[in-house]
Amino acid sequence: MTKTITLAHGNGGQENNELIKEVFYEAFKNDILEKSEDAAIIENGKLAFSTDSFTVSPIFFNDANIGKLAICGTCNDLAMMGAKPKYLTCSVIIEEGFEVEQLKTIVNSMKKELKKNEATIVSGDTKVVPKGTVDKIFINTTGIGEVIYSGISSNNITENDLILVNRDIGAHGATIFTAREGIDIHSNLKSDCNSLFPQVKALIDNGIKITALRDATRGGVSAVLNEWAKQSNICIEVDEEKIPVSDEVKGICEMLGFEATNLANEGTFVLAIHKKFAFRAIEILHKFPEALNASIIGKVTDQYPQKVILNSSWGTKRFLDTPTGELLPRIC
Amino acid sequence: MTKTITLAHGNGGQENNELIKEVFYEAFKNDILEKSEDAAIIENGKLAFSTDSFTVSPIFFNDANIGKLAICGTCNDLAMMGAKPKYLTCSVIIEEGFEVEQLKTIVNSMKKELKKNEATIVSGDTKVVPKGTVDKIFINTTGIGEVIYSGISSNNITENDLILVNRDIGAHGATIFTAREGIDIHSNLKSDCNSLFPQVKALIDNGIKITALRDATRGGVSAVLNEWAKQSNICIEVDEEKIPVSDEVKGICEMLGFEATNLANEGTFVLAIHKKFAFRAIEILHKFPEALNASIIGKVTDQYPQKVILNSSWGTKRFLDTPTGELLPRIC
Repeated sequence: MTKTITLAHGNGGQENNELIKEVFYEAFKNDILEKSEDAAIIENGKLAFSTDSFTVSPIFFNDANIGKLAICGTCNDLAMMGAKPKYLTCSVIIEEGFEVEQLKTIVNSMKKELKKNEATIVSGDTKVVPKGTVDKIFINTTGIGEVIYSGISSNNITENDLILVNRDIGAHGATIFTAREGIDIHSNLKSDCNSLFPQVKALIDNGIKITALRDATRGGVSAVLNEWAKQSNICIEVDEEKIPVSDEVKGICEMLGFEATNLANEGTFVLAIHKKFAFRAIEILHKFPEALNASIIGKVTDQYPQKVILNSSWGTKRFLDTPTGELLPRIC
Repeated sequence: MTKTITLAHGNGGQENNELIKEVFYEAFKNDILEKSEDAAIIENGKLAFSTDSFTVSPIFFNDANIGKLAICGTCNDLAMMGAKPKYLTCSVIIEEGFEVEQLKTIVNSMKKELKKNEATIVSGDTKVVPKGTVDKIFINTTGIGEVIYSGISSNNITENDLILVNRDIGAHGATIFTAREGIDIHSNLKSDCNSLFPQVKALIDNGIKITALRDATRGGVSAVLNEWAKQSNICIEVDEEKIPVSDEVKGICEMLGFEATNLANEGTFVLAIHKKFAFRAIEILHKFPEALNASIIGKVTDQYPQKVILNSSWGTKRFLDTPTGELLPRIC
């Protein structure tokens, strides 16, 4: 039977990783790519370089739109490598018949978000394709950042590190899901879509030694923790009670049987930080209104190398696995 | 009435330029972007940076596919600024149900073409979207090149320059058109899709002083010449008889009423070179099998600033305008 690409191949989880390894790494193999970081580090460690294509549906959702998302997504990938976002390219694929006013709204959101990152768009591409060959608009942003803090790597986490998140998790995934399904829950549920460089910069400026950073996009916090456990050959143990989840997201999860740790985020990052810096890091993050729920959620052990353990609120222990199957497509 | 995006807004010609200026330049304005070059020059002139999204249909066509095209397109934009392609990102959006084997074929073409450019893919993104939300596969490539010859600019062409092309024009546009319409003309018509850095490097290595370079993609040679005439405030005068066009492309043009100068190319570039270097440049280009038809096609005057004049084979003169209207969509 002919093997075909399924939605699971884009889930940010297990099948996605397999496709990337089997097809792309296999053909393009090189040391930089195989580090599997959020951004490539090039030019003797001076620059970070990262790309993302955004296909989110709906294109407008509570608290953001595809334009803001496209700037946050790429700038955040740079920030996660300790880089200050500097130059971006913007490539749009627009469906014939798309409203010019909507395009302007999207582009203005991009402009606003670029300002927060003190970054500029220096090159672009505009394609218009016939009706039915793309759904409304897809945006690619690719960015170059200047590395201001080097050595961040998902491959170097040790038992000296604690695991932190900068805020309550799952808001983006839950927001997109309810928007798409037309679920009106009269709640304050809104996407966490946000530029993370200011928070990262505050940590760096305050002398916090960061081991690893990653924004928990597709595949959520579970995917990040599992990748880290594998890449650093460690066991990560997190406490469910300590993982901040808003009441709104909890409600959606209970209603629909989701796990908050599998939901996508667009302004939430996981940190591995040396014990002696972790509490100070939380203090610094708490100064940001969007990071009031920043918490230490777990630790690193040698118990089950390459595995993530969740200590549940009920007192039981279980493995928290990499998400698998057809998770919500078009989340970003 | 609500203003909407039309296919003409993506034609590489007049409406495309207007959309880019009104929406994107207006929001993102900065000096680098407004230079309107093939690639942005950043980091004190040391690096070139360019992006392109590829939506070509069909994805396989005579002599190339969307993968080869995606590498050539971005590497060529860097080469056109005198830069050696170095690092690329690759972001794919795949339709659910796409065959894995086809994806591998595409990715292997990319690998082969990267080798010709001595460039590597260092970062990527893979999205899978539901059936009907994208047509098969779209690929974005964004590249960083190392500037090895600086000063190339579409804004500095003078009457001291001659206008050259590196080969016969229009092959890509004609190939895509016949492939899409199922026209079987039993000919040797094939896309010119090709990496141009080797030709540019040969010119530079031989001491040729290059004023301007641009690959004649969407909008063809007409679009390039008109942009140059405007950007450098000059009149460009070309001789129809001197513009190389293959018999196959001539045939398609006659059959369908196209003008070869409006057809897209993917391995054809226009050069503005000082008179005293132009003939030597042609000699150098002739050493490349794909550039055997390299020719001097015109000159620069002050007769009609910002206009392009075509001296037709019939002895008449007319303006060669920027292409307008719904040219062939999804050509690249």
